Amino acid sequence: MAGQRKLRMGMVGGGPGAFIGPVHRMAAELDGKIELVAGAFSQSAERSRAAGDAYKIDPDRAYADYKTMLESERRRPDAIDFVAIVTPNHLHLPVALASLTAGFPVMSDKPATATYEEAVELEKAVAKSGLPYGLTHTYAGYALVREARAICGDGQLGRIRKIAVEYLQGWLTEPIESTGQKQAAWRSDPAQSGLGGCIGDIGVHAFHLTEYVTGLKVVGLNASLLSVVAGRKLDDDCTALLRMNNEAQGVLMTSQIAAGERNGLRLRVYGEKGSLDWRQEDPNRLYVKWLDGPEEIRHAAGGYLSHDARAMTRLPGGHPEGYLEAFAALYSEFADVLIAWQKSRKSEIPPTLPGIEAGVRGMRFIDRAIESSRRESWIEF
Amino acid sequence: MAGQRKLRMGMVGGGPGAFIGPVHRMAAELDGKIELVAGAFSQSAERSRAAGDAYKIDPDRAYADYKTMLESERRRPDAIDFVAIVTPNHLHLPVALASLTAGFPVMSDKPATATYEEAVELEKAVAKSGLPYGLTHTYAGYALVREARAICGDGQLGRIRKIAVEYLQGWLTEPIESTGQKQAAWRSDPAQSGLGGCIGDIGVHAFHLTEYVTGLKVVGLNASLLSVVAGRKLDDDCTALLRMNNEAQGVLMTSQIAAGERNGLRLRVYGEKGSLDWRQEDPNRLYVKWLDGPEEIRHAAGGYLSHDARAMTRLPGGHPEGYLEAFAALYSEFADVLIAWQKSRKSEIPPTLPGIEAGVRGMRFIDRAIESSRRESWIEF
Amino acid sequence: MAGQRKLRMGMVGGGPGAFIGPVHRMAAELDGKIELVAGAFSQSAERSRAAGDAYKIDPDRAYADYKTMLESERRRPDAIDFVAIVTPNHLHLPVALASLTAGFPVMSDKPATATYEEAVELEKAVAKSGLPYGLTHTYAGYALVREARAICGDGQLGRIRKIAVEYLQGWLTEPIESTGQKQAAWRSDPAQSGLGGCIGDIGVHAFHLTEYVTGLKVVGLNASLLSVVAGRKLDDDCTALLRMNNEAQGVLMTSQIAAGERNGLRLRVYGEKGSLDWRQEDPNRLYVKWLDGPEEIRHAAGGYLSHDARAMTRLPGGHPEGYLEAFAALYSEFADVLIAWQKSRKSEIPPTLPGIEAGVRGMRFIDRAIESSRRESWIEF
Amino acid sequence: MAGQRKLRMGMVGGGPGAFIGPVHRMAAELDGKIELVAGAFSQSAERSRAAGDAYKIDPDRAYADYKTMLESERRRPDAIDFVAIVTPNHLHLPVALASLTAGFPVMSDKPATATYEEAVELEKAVAKSGLPYGLTHTYAGYALVREARAICGDGQLGRIRKIAVEYLQGWLTEPIESTGQKQAAWRSDPAQSGLGGCIGDIGVHAFHLTEYVTGLKVVGLNASLLSVVAGRKLDDDCTALLRMNNEAQGVLMTSQIAAGERNGLRLRVYGEKGSLDWRQEDPNRLYVKWLDGPEEIRHAAGGYLSHDARAMTRLPGGHPEGYLEAFAALYSEFADVLIAWQKSRKSEIPPTLPGIEAGVRGMRFIDRAIESSRRESWIEF
Repeated sequence: MAGQRKLRMGMVGGGPGAFIGPVHRMAAELDGKIELVAGAFSQSAERSRAAGDAYKIDPDRAYADYKTMLESERRRPDAIDFVAIVTPNHLHLPVALASLTAGFPVMSDKPATATYEEAVELEKAVAKSGLPYGLTHTYAGYALVREARAICGDGQLGRIRKIAVEYLQGWLTEPIESTGQKQAAWRSDPAQSGLGGCIGDIGVHAFHLTEYVTGLKVVGLNASLLSVVAGRKLDDDCTALLRMNNEAQGVLMTSQIAAGERNGLRLRVYGEKGSLDWRQEDPNRLYVKWLDGPEEIRHAAGGYLSHDARAMTRLPGGHPEGYLEAFAALYSEFADVLIAWQKSRKSEIPPTLPGIEAGVRGMRFIDRAIESSRRESWIEF
Repeated sequence: MAGQRKLRMGMVGGGPGAFIGPVHRMAAELDGKIELVAGAFSQSAERSRAAGDAYKIDPDRAYADYKTMLESERRRPDAIDFVAIVTPNHLHLPVALASLTAGFPVMSDKPATATYEEAVELEKAVAKSGLPYGLTHTYAGYALVREARAICGDGQLGRIRKIAVEYLQGWLTEPIESTGQKQAAWRSDPAQSGLGGCIGDIGVHAFHLTEYVTGLKVVGLNASLLSVVAGRKLDDDCTALLRMNNEAQGVLMTSQIAAGERNGLRLRVYGEKGSLDWRQEDPNRLYVKWLDGPEEIRHAAGGYLSHDARAMTRLPGGHPEGYLEAFAALYSEFADVLIAWQKSRKSEIPPTLPGIEAGVRGMRFIDRAIESSRRESWIEF
Repeated sequence: MAGQRKLRMGMVGGGPGAFIGPVHRMAAELDGKIELVAGAFSQSAERSRAAGDAYKIDPDRAYADYKTMLESERRRPDAIDFVAIVTPNHLHLPVALASLTAGFPVMSDKPATATYEEAVELEKAVAKSGLPYGLTHTYAGYALVREARAICGDGQLGRIRKIAVEYLQGWLTEPIESTGQKQAAWRSDPAQSGLGGCIGDIGVHAFHLTEYVTGLKVVGLNASLLSVVAGRKLDDDCTALLRMNNEAQGVLMTSQIAAGERNGLRLRVYGEKGSLDWRQEDPNRLYVKWLDGPEEIRHAAGGYLSHDARAMTRLPGGHPEGYLEAFAALYSEFADVLIAWQKSRKSEIPPTLPGIEAGVRGMRFIDRAIESSRRESWIEF
Repeated sequence: MAGQRKLRMGMVGGGPGAFIGPVHRMAAELDGKIELVAGAFSQSAERSRAAGDAYKIDPDRAYADYKTMLESERRRPDAIDFVAIVTPNHLHLPVALASLTAGFPVMSDKPATATYEEAVELEKAVAKSGLPYGLTHTYAGYALVREARAICGDGQLGRIRKIAVEYLQGWLTEPIESTGQKQAAWRSDPAQSGLGGCIGDIGVHAFHLTEYVTGLKVVGLNASLLSVVAGRKLDDDCTALLRMNNEAQGVLMTSQIAAGERNGLRLRVYGEKGSLDWRQEDPNRLYVKWLDGPEEIRHAAGGYLSHDARAMTRLPGGHPEGYLEAFAALYSEFADVLIAWQKSRKSEIPPTLPGIEAGVRGMRFIDRAIESSRRESWIEF
């Protein structure tokens, strides 16, 4: 009976040495709604099999390539319910298209594709397929990001006038891509990563978080992309001024050469009456400041939080939840979408769950940021 | 083949309305080594079955009581590999004894038993059985608690001279046990909780963390236990002076009527050369101060951390891990113990994983604190 | 015309090498109501003169000893308006008595005297003289300590049930008194410091802050005083349980061997409805937590603060004020008392300004803590 | 004998209702080297006299206007030693010129003048006069800003590659200039403030801090200035990309409509080996991060700090110093310059003390930022 059993996930990518594959596995399974049962974990059959062993799945379901996986799974009575895509960016589109064509819903790592044009193509394919498609903009799964979104959404801050979003990392301070570090290598290779380096890897998260929380849309931008480390092929540092559709201005700052930073995503939103401040490395607190009145710290699991925020926590206050739990929240929402779709064959992505629309906007952002930087001027979004 | 498949867990307790049952399920499964397959989740057969459905396990393995579970599982070819005990405290002993008798290793929630005498009895039973027994003192699973332990262990602070440990919660500020709140009701009922209230529920965590990190042993104490809320049957606030086996003095402060606090466990250790400071609500940072030199913040996943600390993280720096991940670390270590035991039939609990010895000391601590408070004086541990 | 000119201060103590003398000078003069014009800065005439030069006062008014100062100043038309006492503790009483006898109001560093008996004697002398007497319990001058006091005073927290106060320093971690460090030498010498070491130097501040903020009185205590550093003559570490006059319990922890700590005074007060938390090293923020609702950070100079708190700040929000400003607030209040007294000859110390009553209670606290520790038991205050 | 007496300060501006006048008085006098003895505190003779009374100076020296002050003081044997200028910006130049012409050194509030052209004019006048001229860029007086400067100066971070500086206030969130708030009124009036609003009031501090700490110079910028509040005549929000003379890029963000912010000045500097982070509202800590190694918190008064940083503190570690103390540090350095100049007639401003060169660069920055914003493009500095 639908909903009684766990949903079955097939993963593409995530083989030995991958960072994000195990993360997807842990996140998908955390809330007890999903289990990993199959995968094409590597482009090497041998490595895929090794990954399957590590994940402790049935050896028969550790496939040599994703096409075989789709083909084989379609014929099984206990077929996978959806495909999770965790490959480097350039494979996002072909795997997603093949999955949809084979009738499988898709949960994809971000960015949605390698280029804006691909994203538009994918959007059409998703629409045509009628299948659920989700995008793991992880940070949207934090309880206090949901709280921030609720605060903006119901006008507590008054009109939003200023946004400051930053995402600072330091792990590419040195040219480690030339030393064989796998994560660095593909991310700084245009053939695998697309045209964006830092802007595509993390800038797009900052962009998404901005639109997600404020409910506003970027309508223009003026970006400056730099390759600070000599010899690097893609940008590793980016600043962009953003013009929002309500005339608010935003400043987006992102870098992977910010020596000493770890994963410093932070969003500040200023309205007429107050402001909010959320930091990913301290994710269970949301700071809310008012023109007149004490600053507030809203804590995860507080009984006073919005419904959307309370729905995101599994534990009582003071028991920290983190990155995996935020990631899991997206999988949990996606599982609910799948279950409903399996019953009704209608795919309805709730506004809290990033989907293909967010994917298209993200790719548009990367595209426009590169173009603005090339022109050294403001351009329309 | 052992080690290839996931280990199978049977749970006792953790039915509808429970807090800690789902936590054990998530923690046990997080690292992909264990799966929940059976349980006696409630003393009501109907509620146990409902819990089994919620956990999405085979309905045949949602048992009406733990004795039936042990009996039935013993006969299955795909029997559970161990029992997880997540009941109220008064059931810890009988379930553990029955499990061991039936040949199943045990992973138990803390405290080990309801009384010190029971703990001694259990210790003997564990020894006699030769089976692995683990105790989920969750906080021992945090990476930076391991770092703190390593710092003390290799003498970086010099001789330890002062310890300040506190564990402050506010959720029992009002007499909610009389309003039907289930968590509060059993914790404040001596028949289910044992003789300790706050001291048994969270004080024992603070005690364990102290000995675990410092490597020292409490040899004497002077405790003051209070029932601050009128009509409460057990203590809800406790302070104890501790005398350690190296003559260091400790101050242990714990409360459940500290209005506004969530889960404020904090340990500070002062040596001749410096000190350390860890706070559970900010678990990915360890503050280390030196007599002469800048204060340090050691971050989870830092390449400079001790081996023990680095072994505890799944994610790169800046991607917060929390309570569930700490909990999972204990299950992951326990799984490794089980796998080794299944091969060798030798049960070797590593010193980083709390076992029955920690359980006996914890119960002794509760017992001695109550006695010291009654006498209003120092007593031997 | 009274109030038009600055009040003239004569200082006893505070010569070369002193820490607290220059602090008193800066604090007294900060708000433009007082100027240092005379002093007996050292028991050496030569050193007193050198100090006078450093303070840039009239060389004729840098006296060889305090008796000469009092005698000479009495006869001047531009005589000092009051005496500031900044000597080691054992001189507090004789200088205060001589000053009062000579008709000069007194502003004294804490503790009021070297023993409880002396404090009682001084209290009588102050009463008899009818002269203003102030005591520089510095921390009472912080704006947010005043806010905390106001919060407790008007019952916002409900009945207070638990207090945790700590004052941790690390500068006596090593036996620096035996290496000629002047500050350490007199503080660890019973002949100059009195019977209390750490308890008298900083414990008394923690005690005062507790009673000052909560408005409660200690009625019983159980203290444990240690001399952790071998060979030290006085205590360097102290923990005390406090019983307050409303049955609340307090924990007071103070140390000067807490390696790595600087000046860690912190007060937490827990009531039925919420709690507050103030930390001296972050003095411009007061954390207020509620049973149900977001945590608050109240910032210095906030328009929403109590009148008493707003009266303590000189600068707009976000412009940090610190230790000297808190100290200055006490001198400013004392100046207002003096001006009123000069007009009316009535000495009225406002409840916000520590005076001889606070001095007597502080000495009683030191006395009782030593006695309780000696007996290893609870005693009446 | 020079150096024995206090230096005498005459103030222009700082009458009733002023914020910065009393600040200059407190800061100038804090270290016991300077005393306020004269002033032309207001353009109203009556108000100037009232201010003189409040400052408790000789009524004869509370002048009706600055020209009279300069004239009268020149003839006194106890004449002022220098003039402190604390007027609205448009008066900085005429008062400075008149003071220099009359032979008086000048300590001026920032910005140096109302326009860049005026600053160039003033620079020439200072050079011609041979008199000391100081500029109170307050934040340069913090101990840990000096530490940051020392860290950059000796190459600890390697080549600097990225700078992020921000200065966020919220007090102009609403159009309070139209409600009679005096501070807001003159700051948003081009006739009194010059062409810069937020950029001139606080942006210039952020600019100065950047060059001061890093030792780098801005050579190009791309700024966006906004008047967010309807009807406001000057900018109240500004973002600028900065190109430094070593090719590093900077992001400068400043606002006075950041609702809920107080005085949020923060500087982050990223080099090849590590980074530093200083926040004005938490001024006694400097965070230093390394590519490989624990994050450091350097605390004010730490024995491990650079000589320049240690020279800036008056109190032991843990005794917070704040805005007034930073301000005082500049006055203290200026006093030393004056004393040396009085002996040698050579004016030598040390590199740590902002002078007219900093003033000219600051005005150039404001000028260039306005021009860049008008053109919507990068321009040379």
